[in-house]
Amino acid sequence: MSIQSINSRNQFRGKVREIIEGPVVSEVDVETPFGTVTSVITTRSVKELDLKPGVEVLAVVKATEVSIAKL
Amino acid sequence: MSIQSINSRNQFRGKVREIIEGPVVSEVDVETPFGTVTSVITTRSVKELDLKPGVEVLAVVKATEVSIAKL
Amino acid sequence: MSIQSINSRNQFRGKVREIIEGPVVSEVDVETPFGTVTSVITTRSVKELDLKPGVEVLAVVKATEVSIAKL
Amino acid sequence: MSIQSINSRNQFRGKVREIIEGPVVSEVDVETPFGTVTSVITTRSVKELDLKPGVEVLAVVKATEVSIAKL
Amino acid sequence: MSIQSINSRNQFRGKVREIIEGPVVSEVDVETPFGTVTSVITTRSVKELDLKPGVEVLAVVKATEVSIAKL
Amino acid sequence: MSIQSINSRNQFRGKVREIIEGPVVSEVDVETPFGTVTSVITTRSVKELDLKPGVEVLAVVKATEVSIAKL
Repeated sequence: MSIQSINSRNQFRGKVREIIEGPVVSEVDVETPFGTVTSVITTRSVKELDLKPGVEVLAVVKATEVSIAKL
Repeated sequence: MSIQSINSRNQFRGKVREIIEGPVVSEVDVETPFGTVTSVITTRSVKELDLKPGVEVLAVVKATEVSIAKL
Repeated sequence: MSIQSINSRNQFRGKVREIIEGPVVSEVDVETPFGTVTSVITTRSVKELDLKPGVEVLAVVKATEVSIAKL
Repeated sequence: MSIQSINSRNQFRGKVREIIEGPVVSEVDVETPFGTVTSVITTRSVKELDLKPGVEVLAVVKATEVSIAKL
Repeated sequence: MSIQSINSRNQFRGKVREIIEGPVVSEVDVETPFGTVTSVITTRSVKELDLKPGVEVLAVVKATEVSIAKL
Repeated sequence: MSIQSINSRNQFRGKVREIIEGPVVSEVDVETPFGTVTSVITTRSVKELDLKPGVEVLAVVKATEVSIAKL
């Protein structure tokens, strides 16, 4: 279903660089201007979204899921 | 407690730009070289970490919390 | 940014029924065939998405965020 | 341990339809009257809860884990 | 709805020590043998669960939500 | 990158007791003085943090990820 916009404050645009596929979940690494953003999603979603290296995507993170650490 | 390193794959270095304080949680916006990363953490943590605009921090996100959207 | 599709397995279509607004986060209740789905998102997002009672939305949940309980 | 009630606002009652088992986590699809709800939990929990197709369960989601998208 | 058991691997039994109430979410501090476990849940849930200092509860955390840091 | 402190309210100190390794994610069980805390993180992080049974770690949980159940 096409979405106009989503609440998640953090949206990192980039291209899929690598996918490590597992039987249930897969790691998807996205190359963005921020650097590599790593996601773990269901392998079923990887197939349905037809994700492959080079595909343009958004890595999306809800603000409540972001922690802050002091250096 | 000082931490050597944490598993979270996604670590965005930047400076606190703005804090919107609430009675229980606060929004912390972190300015990184590539854009703003927004976090919502407890207001108690904002005080204990002594976060203020200009303070250098890491915005940290676990890979399982990152979704992928197709454009 | 318009999104073609997102990995999140769980997408509940419905209409905003009620919004409880706070200084940092707001509760958004969505009336769906499943019943009411409750979300807590940043108040800033509520404004930017221009959410009001009656607006059609998708409540979206990543599979890794769903727990299973036995009755 | 038996639980009287849990804070999670979103509780979807249904029956396990399918389990995709992995070495560490498993996908559990729950058939509810209004559609499938997908969860990813540890495989150890699948065993301990003795989940199998046909077993009655609740799919449970905390409100802070629900995103809102505009159509 | 009463629950027999839930998948979440981490269940910390204790008593509510303090509640900081906000208009949308509240911080609930639970005194456990592990020390204080802090939760942020909707204020609506605090009311419906009739949580007050001294009430016996379980603080529950899904394994996918736990990060690991090296000292 | 070494971190001075992190906002996550819940920090459980202990030693890695067991690791169940998968192709994408691994289960890491941490033995603390009060019981086991279970985490699921990417297998890549397990390697990079050089986690093995006996290694001293912190299991870290953000307050927004903690649910409360009534007994």
